[in-house]
Amino acid sequence: MTESIERDERHRARMQRKKALIDEKIAQSQDEYGLLLVHSGNGKGKSSSAFGMVARALGHGIKVGVVQFIKGAASTGEEAFFRRFPDEVSYHVMGEGFTWETQDRQRDIDKAREAWAVAVQLLNDPGIGLVVLDELNIALKYGYLELEAVLADIEARPLLQHVVVTGRGALPGMIEAADTVTEMSLVKHAFKAGVKAQKGVEF
Amino acid sequence: MTESIERDERHRARMQRKKALIDEKIAQSQDEYGLLLVHSGNGKGKSSSAFGMVARALGHGIKVGVVQFIKGAASTGEEAFFRRFPDEVSYHVMGEGFTWETQDRQRDIDKAREAWAVAVQLLNDPGIGLVVLDELNIALKYGYLELEAVLADIEARPLLQHVVVTGRGALPGMIEAADTVTEMSLVKHAFKAGVKAQKGVEF
Repeated sequence: MTESIERDERHRARMQRKKALIDEKIAQSQDEYGLLLVHSGNGKGKSSSAFGMVARALGHGIKVGVVQFIKGAASTGEEAFFRRFPDEVSYHVMGEGFTWETQDRQRDIDKAREAWAVAVQLLNDPGIGLVVLDELNIALKYGYLELEAVLADIEARPLLQHVVVTGRGALPGMIEAADTVTEMSLVKHAFKAGVKAQKGVEF
Repeated sequence: MTESIERDERHRARMQRKKALIDEKIAQSQDEYGLLLVHSGNGKGKSSSAFGMVARALGHGIKVGVVQFIKGAASTGEEAFFRRFPDEVSYHVMGEGFTWETQDRQRDIDKAREAWAVAVQLLNDPGIGLVVLDELNIALKYGYLELEAVLADIEARPLLQHVVVTGRGALPGMIEAADTVTEMSLVKHAFKAGVKAQKGVEF
């Protein structure tokens, strides 16, 4: 019951903040503010597009935070590369994060919450201009994290901080909250069944 | 007439090579080979996804070549960042490349051909594992480069080299030649008209 009231209050606070932000955006529509971008769909490029934005941000001298919510789902190549710049990129992979194989829902929930606690630290840091929440949509879709709470934390971030959320199956509430949503669709995938994943392209 | 015969011969050679390659792929479908990936569509993420793959490749110790066919269309941030690694990334932006404003078709064609000559050097270099041809689709759509010749050069590349072609309006022949085609669609773009482009996100 208390939890339900808290959730309602969070929702109300979030909606109030959202309204204030929208009013502000409309009033000062030429001003800069941090965007919430969502990359969803069944095609390729959701995560790699986010990591291209990391490179872009670093080129502008903007510091970046990354949390990968599914260990092994994202590229080990990107991780190896961006870990070269520890002063510029704060890179976090869920320690023994949930995978498709664990079959232990409570453990997965615990790990997702630990990862979210790291995300919240990045979302609270005004020194970080871009936060990538890789495969967050999956954690939300499985109910490992509560959408309302996640959106409240995202929307409480510093005004100029950009956030990119990736993963197929973005929840409607995430799409509603986003400034920009891109759907990556697979048009063609030759030899899908036969050809093994290619280093440097697929992982 | 001579040109037409040459084109027919190139086409035949290309088709023969393609058939041999496909036969080889089918015969040894677990073997690695370089993919041709196309990122098209009207949404965001076509180029940034390619640059994410650059980061991924570098993380695997794979050397990369980049040619940007439209100066100014792609991110200055990505260029600034990847130029930090001259030993790992061979980065080329069309000198005074064609823009939407030049209105000088012959000059644009000349510049596109100069850029393609650089691309061919990268496509001939077995030391380069990934070649990004950013906004090539635009140059092809405008007829600044001939599709058949471009595909012949791409298909003559080293067997293990990956190529990513970006840009909206991919020609049917490019899609046909590709191993993987991803369409980036814009689902939502809030305040599209009012909000100015955001550094670190849009450029």
